[in-house]
Order: sequence, then C-alpha cells, then structure tokens
Amino acid sequence: MPDQRFFRCAGPLRLDEIATLTGSEIAPGGDSARLFHDVAPLDAAGAEHLSFLDNRKYRDAFRASKAGACIIHPDIKDQAPAGMALLLNKRPYRAYALAAQAFYPAGAPPGRVAPSAVIGEGARIAPDAVIEAHAVIGPGAEIGPGTWIEAGSYIGPGVKIGAGCRVGPQATVTHSLVGDHVRIYPGCRIGQDGFGFAPDPAGHVKVPQLGRVVIGDGVEIGANTTIDRGSGPDTEIGAGTWIDNLVQIGHNVKIGKGCIIVAQAGVSGSTSIGDYAVLAGQAGVAGHLKIGAGARIAAQSGVLRDVPAGEEQMGYPALPLRQFMRQIATLKKLTKKQ
Amino acid sequence: MPDQRFFRCAGPLRLDEIATLTGSEIAPGGDSARLFHDVAPLDAAGAEHLSFLDNRKYRDAFRASKAGACIIHPDIKDQAPAGMALLLNKRPYRAYALAAQAFYPAGAPPGRVAPSAVIGEGARIAPDAVIEAHAVIGPGAEIGPGTWIEAGSYIGPGVKIGAGCRVGPQATVTHSLVGDHVRIYPGCRIGQDGFGFAPDPAGHVKVPQLGRVVIGDGVEIGANTTIDRGSGPDTEIGAGTWIDNLVQIGHNVKIGKGCIIVAQAGVSGSTSIGDYAVLAGQAGVAGHLKIGAGARIAAQSGVLRDVPAGEEQMGYPALPLRQFMRQIATLKKLTKKQ
Amino acid sequence: MPDQRFFRCAGPLRLDEIATLTGSEIAPGGDSARLFHDVAPLDAAGAEHLSFLDNRKYRDAFRASKAGACIIHPDIKDQAPAGMALLLNKRPYRAYALAAQAFYPAGAPPGRVAPSAVIGEGARIAPDAVIEAHAVIGPGAEIGPGTWIEAGSYIGPGVKIGAGCRVGPQATVTHSLVGDHVRIYPGCRIGQDGFGFAPDPAGHVKVPQLGRVVIGDGVEIGANTTIDRGSGPDTEIGAGTWIDNLVQIGHNVKIGKGCIIVAQAGVSGSTSIGDYAVLAGQAGVAGHLKIGAGARIAAQSGVLRDVPAGEEQMGYPALPLRQFMRQIATLKKLTKKQ
Repeated sequence: MPDQRFFRCAGPLRLDEIATLTGSEIAPGGDSARLFHDVAPLDAAGAEHLSFLDNRKYRDAFRASKAGACIIHPDIKDQAPAGMALLLNKRPYRAYALAAQAFYPAGAPPGRVAPSAVIGEGARIAPDAVIEAHAVIGPGAEIGPGTWIEAGSYIGPGVKIGAGCRVGPQATVTHSLVGDHVRIYPGCRIGQDGFGFAPDPAGHVKVPQLGRVVIGDGVEIGANTTIDRGSGPDTEIGAGTWIDNLVQIGHNVKIGKGCIIVAQAGVSGSTSIGDYAVLAGQAGVAGHLKIGAGARIAAQSGVLRDVPAGEEQMGYPALPLRQFMRQIATLKKLTKKQ
Repeated sequence: MPDQRFFRCAGPLRLDEIATLTGSEIAPGGDSARLFHDVAPLDAAGAEHLSFLDNRKYRDAFRASKAGACIIHPDIKDQAPAGMALLLNKRPYRAYALAAQAFYPAGAPPGRVAPSAVIGEGARIAPDAVIEAHAVIGPGAEIGPGTWIEAGSYIGPGVKIGAGCRVGPQATVTHSLVGDHVRIYPGCRIGQDGFGFAPDPAGHVKVPQLGRVVIGDGVEIGANTTIDRGSGPDTEIGAGTWIDNLVQIGHNVKIGKGCIIVAQAGVSGSTSIGDYAVLAGQAGVAGHLKIGAGARIAAQSGVLRDVPAGEEQMGYPALPLRQFMRQIATLKKLTKKQ
Repeated sequence: MPDQRFFRCAGPLRLDEIATLTGSEIAPGGDSARLFHDVAPLDAAGAEHLSFLDNRKYRDAFRASKAGACIIHPDIKDQAPAGMALLLNKRPYRAYALAAQAFYPAGAPPGRVAPSAVIGEGARIAPDAVIEAHAVIGPGAEIGPGTWIEAGSYIGPGVKIGAGCRVGPQATVTHSLVGDHVRIYPGCRIGQDGFGFAPDPAGHVKVPQLGRVVIGDGVEIGANTTIDRGSGPDTEIGAGTWIDNLVQIGHNVKIGKGCIIVAQAGVSGSTSIGDYAVLAGQAGVAGHLKIGAGARIAAQSGVLRDVPAGEEQMGYPALPLRQFMRQIATLKKLTKKQ
C-alpha cells in the first residue's frame, strides 16, 4: 500500500521467513509456506498482508482485522479472528519493525561517484560507496564501504565516516569521526565551532574550538540538528543514540549509549548525559551538568541541576516528577480558594 | 523606497487600479487617474506614495502623514489630512497587502533549466518552470507550470510539485505531493523519515517510514522548518496553512486549513490540528492529541491533552487562558503574603 | 594535541610574543625567549604547552599542573608550581583566547574561485576572496577582500558582504548588507521573507517584505539560525553580537551591539534588544517589545512585556529574577503544607 512512487516492496516473504527474521514463533495452525506481499495496519490489511498489534487501544481493530498474518504478544493469541496466521513475539512492535525492514530494505543505490561531485585531494572513498550529485568531499576525508553521501552534502577535510552510513542530502560534517551505520539526516550541521568566546564589551574574543565530534555506531541524527565540535575535549555521541530534528548539542557534551533526544531539545556545553537517558521534545539542559543513566526529562522541561540516574523530572526549573505534580495540584487547589 | 538592489517596483499605478485590485472604495474627492509610484509607511510617505492605517496606535502618524493616498477603515475617514486621497476598506491591512503585491509582484524569472542542475531520468518539468544552479531533480519527479526551484534545492525521486510554487534555495523535498502556489523557504526539510523506532537497549530498531507528506494549495513553510513523512499514514498540511521558521512537524500529523504555526513551535507525531488553529512561537503539542478547529495556543505553552475547538490555552501543562491567568495571580498574591 | 587531521598549529611561539599579543606581563623569573609549541588544558599540558586558569574550581589542577607556562590572574601568582612561567593578566580567559588564536590562526585558503561555482552577471568579487565548490553568487552581489564563501553557499542578487567574512558551507544570504569580519555558520538562513500576512479565512494574504537585513561588523551567526528580512524597515544585528545555533530572529527586529543570544532562543517581529543584552538558551521574546541594554533573560524564559535596562528576568511569563525565585519558594512551601 505504500506509494510505489516512493517505496519499492521486496515481498513476497514466506511466513516462516518472517518468523525467523523477527524471532517469532508461528502459532499452531499457521502455514509456514504462506506468502505475504506487504505490511499494512490492522484496519487496512487484507489476506496478503502482515500486520501487528502492540497497543491495547487497538484490540477491537485486531478482532475485526482481515489481515492474513499478525504479530502479537502470546498472551492474546486466543482473541485472534479465525484464519489469521499468528506470529507470537513478546515485543511485537520491535518484531514488526524488523519485518517491515525486510519488506522495505533501506539499501543505497549501486556505488558510484556522480560526475558533479567534487572530491578533494587524498580523499579515500570505498569502491562501493555512493557520492551523489554536487556533494563535496574534502581533502583527506575517508568514506567507508557502502556509505551513501546524498546530493549536495559537504564532508570536510580529514573527516572519517565509517561503513554503511547515510548522510544528507545537504548535510555538513566537519572535524568529525563518525562510526558505522550512522544516519545523518538532511540539513544536519555537525562539527562547526562551538559557541566559545571570552565576553568583552570591546568585542567578544573568539576561543578557537580545537576538539572534534566523535559519533558511535548506529547513531541517528535528525534533520537540521546541530552538533558543535568540542573546544579542546571532544563532543561525543554514544553508540545507538537517536537524536530527532532541530536538536542543539553544544560543545564538549558527552551523550551515552542508546539515548533518545526528541525534537527541538537542547543540551548546553560540557554537560554529560548517561546511557539510555531520554530528553523529550523542547526540553533543555543547562551547561556543565551530569544527567544520570536512564534519567527521563519531560517535554519542555528545563534542567538547571544534576539529575540522578533513573529519575524522571518535569517543569522549570525541573523537579522530580511527583514533586512537580504535587505543585501543580497545590496551585490549582489554592487558586480555587481565592 | 525599498532598496533597488533587491526590489523592483512595478509602479506607477492609478488610484482606481489600486481601488479595484484591493476591493476598496475611493472616498469623495479622490482623483481616479492620480498616479502612485510606491508604497511607504505613514511617517515616511510623500505625495507619490500609498500608505495604510490599520492600528489605532498610529492615528497620530496618520493625521500628520504626507502620504498622497491611504487605505483606511471607513470609520475614520473624517480624520484624514487635507489633500490625502482615501481608499476605504474594512480590512485595511489586507487591502494594503494586495496593493503592495501589485507594486512588488513576486514572479519567477523566465523559465529555464540551469546548466549545472541535475535532472533525473523520467523527471517531467513544465516548460516554463525554473530550475536554478546546482538544483537536483530526482528520477520521475514532476515540477508544475511556473514553479521555481531555487539554487541547490533537492527534489527527491517521484516527488510531485504543483503549479506556481517556489522552493528554496537549498530546501529538500522527498516522498511528498505538493499542491499549487506553495512556498517552501530556504533550508526546509520535508519528507525525511519520522522518528520511528522500537526502543531496545540492544539497539533501537528502526521502523520503516512508509507514508508521505501531502501539502495542500497555498501553503507557506518557513526557513529550516522540518516536516517528517508519515510512518504508514501520511503527514498532511491543509490548504492555506502558514508555517514559520524552525518549526518541527512529526510524522502522521494532520494540520487543517488556514492554520498559523509560529516559529520554533513543534507538533509531535500523530497529533491532529483543526482548521484555523494557531500555535504561537515555541509552543509544543504532545503526540496523539486532537487540537480543535480555531484553538489558540500561547507562545511557549506545552499542550499535553486534547484542546476543544476555539479554546485559548497557555502555560505548561497548558490550561484554558483564564484559568492560567488566575493561577498566575494566585501565586503572585500568596508570594506577597509570605 | 588537537587532531592534526583538522587543525594546523602555527607554533612554536616565544613567551614574550605571547605576552605581547595577549597584553600580559611576564612574572619575574620567566624566560622571554622560551618557546611554546601548543596550548593545552592544565591537566594535560606538559613543559612545551601554554595553559590558563580562569576559574577557582580548577585551582588544584593548577597547583598540580606540569604546564610550561600559564596565563593567570596576578592575585594567584604565589600558588604556581615551581618552574612554571607565568603570564599575568586580569582577564586570563580573554588572554588565552588571543593566544590560542595565534597558535591556530583561522585564515582562509588562498583566494580562488572554484570551477563549479556559479557567478552571476555583474557580481564583484575581491581578488583574494575564496569562492568554494558549488557556491552560487547572484547577479550584482559584492564579496569583499579576504572573504571566504564555503561550499554550496548561496549569496543572493545584490547582496553585499564585507571584508574578512566567512560564510557557510551551505548558508543562504539574500536581501542583506553584511559588514566586515562577520562569520555566518553552516545552514544559516538570512534575508528570506518575514512571516508577514493579513490573516483571512479565505486565504491569508501575503504582505510583501520590502526591507533588508543589515549586519554590523564582527557578528557571529550560528548554524541553522534564521534571520528574516524586514517588512519595510530593516532587520538589524549590531556590531559584535554573537548568535548561537537554531536561533530565530523575526522581521524588523533590532539587536544592539555585543549582545549574546544562545541556542534555540527566538525573538519575534519588531522587538528591539539593547546593547550587551543576553538571551539564554531557548528563551523567547514576544513581538513589538523593548528589551533594555544589558538585560539578561534566563534560559527557557518567555518575555511578554518590555524589560528595563540591566534587569535579569526568568520564568513564563518572565519576572524579575528575585520575584521569580520567591514564587518558586512559595509554591514549594505551600505544597509541603498540603
């Protein structure tokens, strides 16, 4: 059902292929050899489609669905409509993601360097890398195997980009070392000078920014997001961290592994964020702070102090969630009394 | 008076031409054939200029103005200085906008494809479209009549852009269907993957984003704004909606007709916003919500629940305006007592 | 120590050279002719490095440092480790900035116009200016001596850019007059239409934006920041103002000299901001306001009224700092009583 102008389906896939690649179990009665041609949501799926149920809100849609196959949690297999093949998995959304990746593989086009691309002296480009139209690769840069530099992107001198990455279109990456399987979205700005200067009424004096940006494997960085390089130490983004659009990461920030940073959030310079922490949309964290592993900062909240590991905070200045909620309730109650 | 390096005036225009194109009435005594050479603000205008009054704050400037002609509300025509030609209109600012458009028409340069542009196989470009230097048009894309793709913009494979649009410079549009008379500003990112993944400590698993962005006629989308494509359903922007700079629109969001979304606001995934709603600057709306038609969200406010049609909300979490104001007042009063 | 793939050190420099260029005094015992090869932080510096101490928090690191030379405030010269050459300066961070600039000069590459750049008719480009690959310079634009237009940047028709500037990569500048020594970061959008229209349910009517952006000398404008041109009056950025990434500046805004505007802050149309004012990260200022000289707006705060000169404000709506702090304390106390 996806628009064929934009998406090419690699189906059909056999039920047992799908089971294997998603780590699911075929419920009794399922025909291993049955072919499925596409993925579809529960309410739109037909006999040739694979669907999934991950959220209780959609149980009615599940019971009424005409999907040929469905990935579900084992606990609800008894509620399935007759004739639906079931793939049992304790994390159905994750399994669906893997299946959908198989139906719609994300591969780059075959390796080539567009004639209009400009390649600097001494740049090393893996033979199967793709460099699209009007891209510019600086002198001495390295582009790893299978990496795809989209149209108009700029990779600065000496930058190293690993294997299986995708950059752009129209992203800029300078002063950076980028791992494998990193995805940098359109308009991203990575590696420019941080906001470092000695304030002076006679003219703020720029402090040369002599660090880099070091990005781990499997990182995603959203459209028009900005990540400044370090001032001396590096700015670091840990493996598997996902960053959404229009996020600002200041110089010298250290972000751990597997973090989730939602759109328009901002992290000021020299702050560190522990593994698996979450910053919701438009959240802000002041500079030189430590946000513990697994901490969760609510949308639009503003963090002005260190946050202990695992703690959820909300508000401005941000407070532990329960405390924030009690303050909200207190103000509401006192207002009614006035 | 506009700087002639940047703006070319199409004047002079006759008073009656201006009256016709703005839907205004010439007040008694006005000379229909009198020529006006340019527009100007009340305090700077001379005898050859057209000006307007839309705001009570500027009545003194109006009374002292030397403008040759002025667009005003009929109610205040008796306050005009002697000798000023008056164009009477109940919406003077709208009428001024139409007149200024006539003095400074926004037309594209004559149709041509720059030699450095790269046009993909099977792309269909209307004969009078303009494709500027270093633009890239993907295979199978369609560019409608009179549409102007500015320097360095990227139109992805299969994208359809209607008639009379203007895109860029340096915007990217992929996986999208764009209506007529749409204006996409520099650095806009439209159609990239939404922020969709199944969280997993072993590595978040990407969910292929299989929808599109569908943009109605007459939409404006500001500089460096980001609009992600749908995950399966489409992301939709209704006809006549105006979006300012640095706005984030998540995947699957549905925005109605004629909405106004001010700079740095953000709308999280799968939220719907009714016709003519307004989000002020830096406002945020959480995901999976319904914002009713004509609702108004104040600047920097954070919406965490559905908002009824026509309601004005403010604060974080956002509350109906009056309730927010009462809370502010209560806290102020209680603080004084402490 | 900076990564030599990205940074080229111009050292060594003699101690007395460093003293002269930073305006520092060599403390008794310092060997004027001693050579220093690089800058380094206190804890990593060796005998051949210059370091600095600006913050009491690092005094222990200072006492234990093996740096060959250090820039310090005269008051603490007695705490220096034996053998360390001391440069005495009342503003050590500023002096360090100047020294680091000498070790890592920011000069542009030698003047040239890349073959893939597109230069419009009548554009005037100083002989020693640099125009990189795929840049586009519009007809009639002027690029001053020593100015460096990086890859893929777009300079619109008639735009004037002064001497010693650096733009891009992939920035767009239209309808603007830019002073000398201005730095415009990657993805900046300067001079596009402001968000100006007459609201109308039948279709908002665009108001032609007939002003410019006028940028003073020594301004820095961060990555992906957007500055709209005026609607008739100009948008103005005063000399020496520093603007961080992802900032929004609306049309007709006037920003004074030496201001500091931190990432993701936003200033709505027609507001004026006095000299040396500071907007911290994610702060927002409504339209048509006057923010006095030297005012300081805290991070994430939202200003809805004029702010007197020199005043510090915080919160939403923003209040004088002490008042905001008292309200926070009151709410905390009352919540405990509930």
